[in-house]
Amino acid sequence: MELKGVFAQLIPLLDLAGTFVFALSGAMRGVKLRLDLFGVIVLSFVAATSGGILRDLLIGATPPPAITDWRYLTVSAGAGAVTMVGFRAVDQVRKPLLVCDAAGLGLFCVTGTTKALAYGLSPLAAIVLGVLTGIGGGIVRDVLSGEVPEVFRGEIYALAALAGSLVAVLGERLHWPPTPTTIAGALLCFAIRCTALWRGWRLPPAGSTE
Amino acid sequence: MELKGVFAQLIPLLDLAGTFVFALSGAMRGVKLRLDLFGVIVLSFVAATSGGILRDLLIGATPPPAITDWRYLTVSAGAGAVTMVGFRAVDQVRKPLLVCDAAGLGLFCVTGTTKALAYGLSPLAAIVLGVLTGIGGGIVRDVLSGEVPEVFRGEIYALAALAGSLVAVLGERLHWPPTPTTIAGALLCFAIRCTALWRGWRLPPAGSTE
Amino acid sequence: MELKGVFAQLIPLLDLAGTFVFALSGAMRGVKLRLDLFGVIVLSFVAATSGGILRDLLIGATPPPAITDWRYLTVSAGAGAVTMVGFRAVDQVRKPLLVCDAAGLGLFCVTGTTKALAYGLSPLAAIVLGVLTGIGGGIVRDVLSGEVPEVFRGEIYALAALAGSLVAVLGERLHWPPTPTTIAGALLCFAIRCTALWRGWRLPPAGSTE
Repeated sequence: MELKGVFAQLIPLLDLAGTFVFALSGAMRGVKLRLDLFGVIVLSFVAATSGGILRDLLIGATPPPAITDWRYLTVSAGAGAVTMVGFRAVDQVRKPLLVCDAAGLGLFCVTGTTKALAYGLSPLAAIVLGVLTGIGGGIVRDVLSGEVPEVFRGEIYALAALAGSLVAVLGERLHWPPTPTTIAGALLCFAIRCTALWRGWRLPPAGSTE
Repeated sequence: MELKGVFAQLIPLLDLAGTFVFALSGAMRGVKLRLDLFGVIVLSFVAATSGGILRDLLIGATPPPAITDWRYLTVSAGAGAVTMVGFRAVDQVRKPLLVCDAAGLGLFCVTGTTKALAYGLSPLAAIVLGVLTGIGGGIVRDVLSGEVPEVFRGEIYALAALAGSLVAVLGERLHWPPTPTTIAGALLCFAIRCTALWRGWRLPPAGSTE
Repeated sequence: MELKGVFAQLIPLLDLAGTFVFALSGAMRGVKLRLDLFGVIVLSFVAATSGGILRDLLIGATPPPAITDWRYLTVSAGAGAVTMVGFRAVDQVRKPLLVCDAAGLGLFCVTGTTKALAYGLSPLAAIVLGVLTGIGGGIVRDVLSGEVPEVFRGEIYALAALAGSLVAVLGERLHWPPTPTTIAGALLCFAIRCTALWRGWRLPPAGSTE
């Protein structure tokens, strides 16, 4: 009970931590493309928030908190600035960052699903929007970089988000209390993603069996 | 009268058939790019539904049926799976598929225009949104593939959708009953597109007269 | 006082003039990519209106005036047609056009910020949306062209828009009357952008200090 209460209070903080880690992936991309400071910050913000913004537009929850809550922009800009100044340092912790990114993915897919359910969407639609919340930022980041989205290229990433979203829907259907549901969904997504990273699991490309 | 009644009942079915054919174009692209199964399904879904989703966002009809109605996702995923398994077979019927695609385009531009009119938009705006309904999916598919949209490159595709949308607006203005209007608009679009395919008509590229 | 009244009446006209100049940038791109007439017009429309449309979607102001008001489409199509016919002439006034574009940027960032404030957004969110109004069209134009957005690549463009948006927020906070606020913000943005063009000021690319 106490743990649950602490975790419930921690969620907004974890949400911003996830935003920071997602923003770092955008910032790294921006530095690699040799964008200017403004471009790096936009790519950080976009990588961190586009998933949630697209979800909010689709469910009609406008204006999206990612725009109205100053902390998302501030955290994203911070990630951009840190990466501009200390690119090499950030680049050297790339692998630990993937683990943090997996944790962010777990949180985002579950909270995205839960928000969609709260707006009255069906379980299937909520799962779609939960996965979108987790992967949308990376997709927009890649499109703005002129690249085909990485998430379509074999990484076990969307699949992990799908598992987390499924748990969120299941919890809501079975009337589990919100906090354990969130923890369980985020943990499952995190575990799948980390195992895939550790084991080098990938989805095969289309046409590879012919 | 009887034919009209049958057709009115057929529209939802035809709509899903059009979704399937549009989804195939996304799936084919995904396989060619050697995306994984998840990427192929996303590209199928996006190619089939982005036009309607963009229209719905612009008129404020959220959440869009493409998200809330499970059949669109199911049909798109089906098209993705079929293409993954039977890419060669699908590739061999590429030309007949263009004819089916023309039929889908005809239906989508008319129903898109009609929906925009029902939301109180002006005839011109409804035509813009009708055309967007028809061509938006292909545009998003191409952007996600890192390509300049095909529809801007000489195909008589948007022009056919424009003709269909015009008929839909005309029918509404002249108080034609909905079913004949839909049939007439979709048929005109279909006929223009198919004639262009058959005759090899294309729009000239800009600058070609200099 | 009289000047103010004249300017207030001029704003809709200036808005369309800005739309025309922004549309020219899309049309030029379309011709360079050798798109067809339809593609050139779409790129013109998109370059002129996407910033405002994205802002309107994010604040829930649907359908966006860029869609419902026939003048935006007409002006954009006009810019596309002019550029198709007289590409060389337009290309030769590229540099003067950059000055017109700077004026359009000044107006758009201020009116975008003001609209966001009118919809109840916080000052920071309104600044973000004001800048987006100014730069969004160019970003979508570049994405549809398969390019990394120019605005991230060193131009003092978004920064100028940021300055204009700041003035708009400041004016609203300090209860300045709307017209002088608009003039001041647009002028500051215009001055910064033009000075940067004239002096060749650019933001350094990320990583350039290492």
